[in-house]
Amino acid sequence: MLRIRVPATSANFGPGFDVLGVALSLFNEIEVEKANGVFDFQWEDGSTFGDEENLVLSTMANVFDLFNYKVPGYKIRSKSCAIPVSRGLGSSAASIVAGIYAANYLMGGKMTKEEISALATKFEGHPDNVVSCIEGGMVISAVGENGEILSSQVKIAPGLKLVVMVPDYKLSTRMARSVLPDTYSRADMVYNVSHAALLVTSLCRGEFNKLRVALGDRIHQPYRLRLIPGAEAVFELCRRAGSLGEFISGAGPTLIALVPEDDTDFCERIRPQLDEQVLEWKTYELEICHSGVSLEVM
Amino acid sequence: MLRIRVPATSANFGPGFDVLGVALSLFNEIEVEKANGVFDFQWEDGSTFGDEENLVLSTMANVFDLFNYKVPGYKIRSKSCAIPVSRGLGSSAASIVAGIYAANYLMGGKMTKEEISALATKFEGHPDNVVSCIEGGMVISAVGENGEILSSQVKIAPGLKLVVMVPDYKLSTRMARSVLPDTYSRADMVYNVSHAALLVTSLCRGEFNKLRVALGDRIHQPYRLRLIPGAEAVFELCRRAGSLGEFISGAGPTLIALVPEDDTDFCERIRPQLDEQVLEWKTYELEICHSGVSLEVM
Repeated sequence: MLRIRVPATSANFGPGFDVLGVALSLFNEIEVEKANGVFDFQWEDGSTFGDEENLVLSTMANVFDLFNYKVPGYKIRSKSCAIPVSRGLGSSAASIVAGIYAANYLMGGKMTKEEISALATKFEGHPDNVVSCIEGGMVISAVGENGEILSSQVKIAPGLKLVVMVPDYKLSTRMARSVLPDTYSRADMVYNVSHAALLVTSLCRGEFNKLRVALGDRIHQPYRLRLIPGAEAVFELCRRAGSLGEFISGAGPTLIALVPEDDTDFCERIRPQLDEQVLEWKTYELEICHSGVSLEVM
Repeated sequence: MLRIRVPATSANFGPGFDVLGVALSLFNEIEVEKANGVFDFQWEDGSTFGDEENLVLSTMANVFDLFNYKVPGYKIRSKSCAIPVSRGLGSSAASIVAGIYAANYLMGGKMTKEEISALATKFEGHPDNVVSCIEGGMVISAVGENGEILSSQVKIAPGLKLVVMVPDYKLSTRMARSVLPDTYSRADMVYNVSHAALLVTSLCRGEFNKLRVALGDRIHQPYRLRLIPGAEAVFELCRRAGSLGEFISGAGPTLIALVPEDDTDFCERIRPQLDEQVLEWKTYELEICHSGVSLEVM
């Protein structure tokens, strides 16, 4: 039996739209067992689920198709589903990664980590969530001229935590994509290139006083903030409470504030003002998950 | 007396248009002396020069104007002018930086390094050459929403040298700017953001096998390569000779190849093919200048 644990991820980190992803200490977990003539998927609470709505199963089916593999059967138990769905925290990337690893296990481990990464990117449509989900930490993903994906890990200096604020509100990725411009000025291009590079070095070198500027973005956040009721007010109250910088997680609607690790009651301090907002906001205090997907043969 | 030594710089490093600059081990040097009623500038060879054509002197004049300072006089000797002019190696940035430091010395040192950096950026129009000239090493410069400049040094792992190829051909920055598009697609934006971030981590971590992809650029090089006769052929012959990656220095026409430090006869190997090109190419084997501008009171 294989236990697969996949982390939540935050993509589009600051100026790193489609580029910078980070794995977070919040996990989904499934157990996969080989079986003959049994095709069984059960959620933690014992309920079962149809293929259509289950991204783990549909990913597995896609992998089997690709390898022309007739799977004899399986038993899958979903042990934990902590990652909120459709909130910009990489729940679909987590399901895709879990599904590929599960299928790979059932096929007898035909795929290398690089192949899994490439396939997950293909299924997800962009690399930043899946690659950071697999690799852990903060990952830069670049797609070269010939479609090849190169990634590189950013070793973030210690001292930061992420306050992740999830509203009771869904924002479809399609909707969030539709508000983005098709073209950008050269000034905006230079702005994002410079801020992304500055963000990477500021995080590596622990120059956290530069984060507020370095998180500046002109690719997606100015257009998406207005799709999330109260987002600017939430950013502002975090800033006043002493956060180092704020950004939209993925395509939203989740917001993240970077906070010094030793600020132990940040969430309590912002709670009263969060409760005054239109939406209901749930907060998580998370760390960076440095290890990525974990596999345990049992 | 103050001796000021300023390094050549290569801006627009790979995907880092207007963002990434690096200081090189090639220097101009002037000596500045306070004097009364004497306004004297002499070149190394003893010739003198009018103000209009001398960017060091005109920069000094601009600084004095700004501070409303009536300079009593000076003697300036240009000791070394090794940086080729109008070739994309930051000769104007070097003159501007030297001029500001000279003026500051004559005024009695009113300006901080940060003020000098901001003023030099204002005079030059963009930060990447002047900031790397002042700070040394590779520098990321980002201009924030309120015009403030934030910079951060990239500590490049050892093992690289730069083969700098300078043609007998001038390319005006204005001409080189005129061929750039005004807008870029979102795909191009993501391409350059991702490649710049990847370049920074590849250089920091010594992952030199990623440099060829990481140097990819869609902001300026695809448009400017054709302005430099034979540039693509030169890139190709460097690639075949084993360079790790190539790019246009600044706005051109100088080209740079990144080469392993221990490849001692790279320049000799490419010489025969360089000599077959339309333009005449002079090569310099340079290192990164980690210290930036140097000041010596004598």
